[in-house]
Amino acid sequence: MRIAILGGTGSFGRALAGRLVELGGDVVVVGSRDAERAAACAAELGGGAEGKANADAVVGADLAILAVKADGALDTAREVAASLGDTPLLSVATAIRFEKGVGALPDPDGLSLAERVQQVVSGPVVAGLHSIAAANLDEAAPDEDALVCGDDPAAKELVLELAGRLVAGRAVDAGPLASARALEGLTAVIVNVNRRYKAHAGLRVTGLA
Amino acid sequence: MRIAILGGTGSFGRALAGRLVELGGDVVVVGSRDAERAAACAAELGGGAEGKANADAVVGADLAILAVKADGALDTAREVAASLGDTPLLSVATAIRFEKGVGALPDPDGLSLAERVQQVVSGPVVAGLHSIAAANLDEAAPDEDALVCGDDPAAKELVLELAGRLVAGRAVDAGPLASARALEGLTAVIVNVNRRYKAHAGLRVTGLA
Repeated sequence: MRIAILGGTGSFGRALAGRLVELGGDVVVVGSRDAERAAACAAELGGGAEGKANADAVVGADLAILAVKADGALDTAREVAASLGDTPLLSVATAIRFEKGVGALPDPDGLSLAERVQQVVSGPVVAGLHSIAAANLDEAAPDEDALVCGDDPAAKELVLELAGRLVAGRAVDAGPLASARALEGLTAVIVNVNRRYKAHAGLRVTGLA
Repeated sequence: MRIAILGGTGSFGRALAGRLVELGGDVVVVGSRDAERAAACAAELGGGAEGKANADAVVGADLAILAVKADGALDTAREVAASLGDTPLLSVATAIRFEKGVGALPDPDGLSLAERVQQVVSGPVVAGLHSIAAANLDEAAPDEDALVCGDDPAAKELVLELAGRLVAGRAVDAGPLASARALEGLTAVIVNVNRRYKAHAGLRVTGLA
């Protein structure tokens, strides 16, 4: 599978790219606003990783991962929309503002960032991996599950398969794309937990067969 | 500790009351709109449980648990506010509506149910246990953690101690009361997961020391 990571030189994107290169089997394309920085990052990663400007990185990809920070996510999605076409796009960022360490969705209509990304690209958007810290991806497969949601079954299945390889736990189908409202909001809780316990917390879903 | 469970004859309230009676050590007071139904439920529970009308149940309690369904939570909180005084109140319900199986907070200002409950009672409100299914409380201590949030440290500590006894996992401090927005939203995700996997899912927080 050819996987383009937009914002692949950022902390989460780079950790994700590194993990995918380690796992092997996929062609990892690091995307960045700056093609040279992408190329340098890809060279460091090795494993046949490529580095390109974001809009070029998605060309021919089976899956693109929008790993830029929340404040740049919509601009990057708009920037790559034409070259992305109908390729599935995984949204991992959270648009919450923090007020006294607690998140509130900033959008007055209550949409998640992932739903707003869906408004600017034509391919199916899947959301997930919100509860996985970059620091945990740096280690061996982290002891946590990956929650994934989306409206397009095939795109969601693709991401579930990928997510299941990233974590020691399982990839859990959390329902339609609108579930991203809850998954993104949960990031604030995890930040609170991390502060309180000086941890990089993750989640496991218990009680599944 | 004397614990009043408002809505203690409902499915979650009754499961919680049953678990607390089993654990022993606390005096459990089942509250209901209907004092006779409360008394009948308490008699079935045994273990010295008492049954009273909601407003009477909270008198002398060290902790009250608002275990009525979301649509009755604010009315019940208003009804007991005077007799509750400064006693801590634990809010466990979720005010989310479901749209195609996915939750959206109904309140235009984005407050959680727990924060709205805090607007009608004078004692400290703590929120938690949202991710614990009544069905899981019926078993032995369920394999999950209990997430708890609140602004009053002493009240939160009291609930964390109680919550830690209910689950096989741990009670996790999820930050200030506003974290209830995320914890309540998460209920929709758990409902989606339960449908998809025919499960009674719970959560574990990993990565804590």
